[in-house]
Amino acid sequence: MIARSLVGRIQPVTTELGPGDDAAIVTSGDGRVVVSSDMLVEGRHFRMDWSSPRDIGRKAVAQNAADVVSMGARPTAFTVSLGCPPSTPVDVVDGISAGIWDAATDLGAGVVGGDLVQSPVIVVSVTVLGDLGGRPAVLRSGAKVGDRIAVAGLFGCSAAGLALLLDEAEGFPDLLASHRIPNPPYESAWAAAGSAHSMTDVSDGLIADLRHLAEASDVRFDIFSATVPTSPDVASASEVLDVDPLEWILSGGEDHGFAATFGPEVEIPSGWTVIGEVVGGSGVTVDGSLRESGGGWHSFSTTGTTAV
Amino acid sequence: MIARSLVGRIQPVTTELGPGDDAAIVTSGDGRVVVSSDMLVEGRHFRMDWSSPRDIGRKAVAQNAADVVSMGARPTAFTVSLGCPPSTPVDVVDGISAGIWDAATDLGAGVVGGDLVQSPVIVVSVTVLGDLGGRPAVLRSGAKVGDRIAVAGLFGCSAAGLALLLDEAEGFPDLLASHRIPNPPYESAWAAAGSAHSMTDVSDGLIADLRHLAEASDVRFDIFSATVPTSPDVASASEVLDVDPLEWILSGGEDHGFAATFGPEVEIPSGWTVIGEVVGGSGVTVDGSLRESGGGWHSFSTTGTTAV
Repeated sequence: MIARSLVGRIQPVTTELGPGDDAAIVTSGDGRVVVSSDMLVEGRHFRMDWSSPRDIGRKAVAQNAADVVSMGARPTAFTVSLGCPPSTPVDVVDGISAGIWDAATDLGAGVVGGDLVQSPVIVVSVTVLGDLGGRPAVLRSGAKVGDRIAVAGLFGCSAAGLALLLDEAEGFPDLLASHRIPNPPYESAWAAAGSAHSMTDVSDGLIADLRHLAEASDVRFDIFSATVPTSPDVASASEVLDVDPLEWILSGGEDHGFAATFGPEVEIPSGWTVIGEVVGGSGVTVDGSLRESGGGWHSFSTTGTTAV
Repeated sequence: MIARSLVGRIQPVTTELGPGDDAAIVTSGDGRVVVSSDMLVEGRHFRMDWSSPRDIGRKAVAQNAADVVSMGARPTAFTVSLGCPPSTPVDVVDGISAGIWDAATDLGAGVVGGDLVQSPVIVVSVTVLGDLGGRPAVLRSGAKVGDRIAVAGLFGCSAAGLALLLDEAEGFPDLLASHRIPNPPYESAWAAAGSAHSMTDVSDGLIADLRHLAEASDVRFDIFSATVPTSPDVASASEVLDVDPLEWILSGGEDHGFAATFGPEVEIPSGWTVIGEVVGGSGVTVDGSLRESGGGWHSFSTTGTTAV
């Protein structure tokens, strides 16, 4: 099944040898390859009644791609290991494969190999390879005191969409789509790659991911909540569900945005919004108050992903 | 859990950036990277009552590494996505991680990243990166009429070990170990990389994997069953269980050996045994009879892995 649906598309020039042999060969022009892996499990990271198979494939690629894009790299190839119950309809496998190919193609990358096995629930395990094109990687550890903190993307939309799905509330199709089909602002991240001192993708929740940057850089991140870009729908949905929209914006997960810091002298690239400043100390302060808690958010079940 | 146990070891020089950031960076000296992914699922590819966590980690790496070694490449890095039920003891996660690191270290490779998520059963998804060192890859499609067919490793041992475990038979510790802890003859594969016309790893069953070479090369593989290297224990175990040992040797899975073809003029490298000849036609003949059936073997449950 996956053999047919994953093999059938046209590979980019970076795929020197595609699927069909024991392994694939991908070019890495500058002699380095950026690599990251993620696993999505049915019932934890997606639900078949909320997402189409194609959406699940797209989500698996987006989540994975964001990890190498936030280093400043361009994805070149994906491998996909897919676990499915024996009762899984072929259409579901083909749909997931199509979503994976769609998202990979949008990125100019290929799907070069993988594995298809039986498992009790659907498991989509994706590895992405990326090319830095000779540039240094943008690490988490490069933030400096005096840097401006900026973000790309809209925050809180995916968490609001999830809350609406859980509540079976009506309306807000854009928020539901934000949860179902992540659309990371890759171009903004690449635009920042040349000048950002530090960068990460935001998927665990804005504060949680800013804390990763602050800890790796041994500094404090001061942000102002009113400046974080979001959608007007988030405030409307928060009224319907009677919750604090800042919870979604600051701690909601799967935003699929990016956060970065820029030195005081550089122009902030297109697509980025300044939300605060890097100062001495540790941790993350929001509107002047230190956020002690993790602020992390892990999927719609009790636990989620942890980067190794 | 996995963060601690997977991050703690010393990385090889090929790991430019190890775990801890959004992605890892691995060097690929010749501007190409060989990549392959495999997924092992509890109850399909391993059983916790038969294998120690460390054995499972080693097995996941061996199965994956063999795919890039059979191209003639040296593994440089592994990523590991691990799905575990919330009730999984930390010792099990640490044991799997230790087995992964042990096997990676034996290969001179690093474990550079991954993911830890909740899943209904243990799922180990591994991706390997490999370096061809400037040499051309040894493909499945290079076998030529007149080539000698040779294999490295012992065949039928793992299938015999599995049959003994399923039958709860006593004795034959070496056969049980063959099933539990694969030990692919990597050095033999690397010794063949400079001269073999075609090569593959043997994990689906000898005939099934030879058929992959024959189909990719558009030739027929003629082999003689008596020449296939095996252990004397296989014949003894087959008497105990009253089965045909050739079934294990020719169709048993998880042999973790290698098969290759060599031109008539070259010296067969150390560690290889000639078992037949490449002739015109298609398919695989054993002792003069065409084997129509797949001859493939898929784990101890009803289905197993399929390369994409």
